[in-house]
Amino acid sequence: MYPDTFEGFAIPSADKWNSPKRFEFKPKPFGDYDIDVKIIACGVIPTLTIRPTEIIGNAVKVGSKVTTVKVGDRVGVGAQISACLECDTCKEDNETYCKQQMDTYGSIYPDGTVAHGGYSSHIRAHEHFTFPIPEGLQTELVAPMLCAGLTAYSPLVRNGVGPGKKVGILGIGGIGHFGILFAKALGATTYAISRSRAKEADAIKMGADGFIATKEADWAKDHEMTFDFILSTASSDEGFDLAPYLSLLRTHGRFIAVGLPEGAGWQIRPQSLLANGCLIGSSHLGSRKETLEMLKLAGDKQIKSWVETIPVGEEGVGKALERVHNGDVRYRFTLVDYEKQFQ
Amino acid sequence: MYPDTFEGFAIPSADKWNSPKRFEFKPKPFGDYDIDVKIIACGVIPTLTIRPTEIIGNAVKVGSKVTTVKVGDRVGVGAQISACLECDTCKEDNETYCKQQMDTYGSIYPDGTVAHGGYSSHIRAHEHFTFPIPEGLQTELVAPMLCAGLTAYSPLVRNGVGPGKKVGILGIGGIGHFGILFAKALGATTYAISRSRAKEADAIKMGADGFIATKEADWAKDHEMTFDFILSTASSDEGFDLAPYLSLLRTHGRFIAVGLPEGAGWQIRPQSLLANGCLIGSSHLGSRKETLEMLKLAGDKQIKSWVETIPVGEEGVGKALERVHNGDVRYRFTLVDYEKQFQ
Repeated sequence: MYPDTFEGFAIPSADKWNSPKRFEFKPKPFGDYDIDVKIIACGVIPTLTIRPTEIIGNAVKVGSKVTTVKVGDRVGVGAQISACLECDTCKEDNETYCKQQMDTYGSIYPDGTVAHGGYSSHIRAHEHFTFPIPEGLQTELVAPMLCAGLTAYSPLVRNGVGPGKKVGILGIGGIGHFGILFAKALGATTYAISRSRAKEADAIKMGADGFIATKEADWAKDHEMTFDFILSTASSDEGFDLAPYLSLLRTHGRFIAVGLPEGAGWQIRPQSLLANGCLIGSSHLGSRKETLEMLKLAGDKQIKSWVETIPVGEEGVGKALERVHNGDVRYRFTLVDYEKQFQ
Repeated sequence: MYPDTFEGFAIPSADKWNSPKRFEFKPKPFGDYDIDVKIIACGVIPTLTIRPTEIIGNAVKVGSKVTTVKVGDRVGVGAQISACLECDTCKEDNETYCKQQMDTYGSIYPDGTVAHGGYSSHIRAHEHFTFPIPEGLQTELVAPMLCAGLTAYSPLVRNGVGPGKKVGILGIGGIGHFGILFAKALGATTYAISRSRAKEADAIKMGADGFIATKEADWAKDHEMTFDFILSTASSDEGFDLAPYLSLLRTHGRFIAVGLPEGAGWQIRPQSLLANGCLIGSSHLGSRKETLEMLKLAGDKQIKSWVETIPVGEEGVGKALERVHNGDVRYRFTLVDYEKQFQ
């Protein structure tokens, strides 16, 4: 039991992915910059390896050199738990791209201890990766901002999304719904782009100014060379033809993919990037600086994630995993009721 | 004969690509913004369809509304001969990306006349695409800047190449040699990247600070995540694996391809762009604004293209085409002695 060990839920084997079991584990040694967080809620990331890395909790112990958090503060921990914090990349607020960056779930510290993420009673994290949560943001709504939200927010701000810009959000899932919410909050004219119109009403409610259904004929025509930026959150690349999306971009417009399909990827000839000199790329999470900005924006504009809550526990975690597996999520799950499972 | 008709050389049929024949043609009607240029030299673009679009000549007639050129001025005409000049794209100095952009060689004006490029006695061009050539730049050396040079220069300046930046120029041919000359002139630390070391001595003479030979083992290792920008001028994609080049880039570094290989292109998974959040793209020529800047830089820094001259004429043009076809160019041809062929 805390403070000696943390408790959590884990998947015993690959074929039992929907039957998590309770277990105890030892966290990494407590450092001067570390914070122990008693978890109260956690968002679930629906990748193939489903990751509990959108953690909200209360600080119960803070290291001697911690300056940004005190015991009792409500804080968040997202999908990144470590980086060297000393290299140029880190110093330029690009710690997500540090060669020593570590994921919050399932990665191994240099001393051999495993980072277990948020299906747990507690998490121990360096203060750089522990974010004070502004008052007025509801715990279960802010949780998914720490991975899905940031994954959308960072490329938006890094690519100049704001007033006067026309932005497309391709794919309306967990990350995509944040793409719409944040692009709109940043002041951009925001289009949702999806295969069918099934999610059109939702997208408009989230704030989208327009909706494009790509299974309709000539869908790209009216918008040719008008978008400044497209954030692709599409998680499948089966039959995906990049070219019509690129044709939507203005000169040097950018197509940034944060959805990471499992397939072979895109076949691209430089020639197809020539007509508008567009750029394509990807983006990984975001920095501490951006996380704090995002949380402030969410507080200031009262941005509300679309979230369904599920009680943590063997049953709840199993159910969440199963529904994520089936794509039955609108638009994000937050596991709650941690106090009923963990003392 | 001028002013009624222009004379030129043309390829009679595809199987006679190295046997150009003399012919006469009618230029487009003379407009208020047009300039007639008596050609004195022309660089040759070694694409599959070899294009004479690096034209230098003297203005012999200027339209009533022309303000930037007067009769007798030495001027250049590059690879773009027209654009609408009215759309947002044009107004933002992106006329190269205008939907109505026209190539100088082989494209057709709305009235049906053909733009015949620079294997000719004269060329008629809108003043926007006719550039005064600064004194002190040698005609045969400045000619190839108008296409090859600009193709290198524009992406360099559009991607912030300058002091404090580390830049790679991949492929040392016509465009690549300008990449080295201009990146260096702009103040960047400049590396030439080539398969073997065959062109190393040349690259260093052009000003390269370093040389990377990609057929050597572990070539990428020492330079991982250190480049701000890579300009790829590689014209073959056979067996080309993009990933190691992308690994050279710093966070959000850019890989811009202006070489346009004929193959199937790159196979890219967004995942491979994730480690450093790099961007890939292409670039098309450059704007009038950039052309004038480039010519000024070339004049100020006395940049000397590496050029071989060949006399224009049936024999000279045929020889140039044949040597380009065989890849026997270091690093660009300029056709000269126009006064011996055309009155």
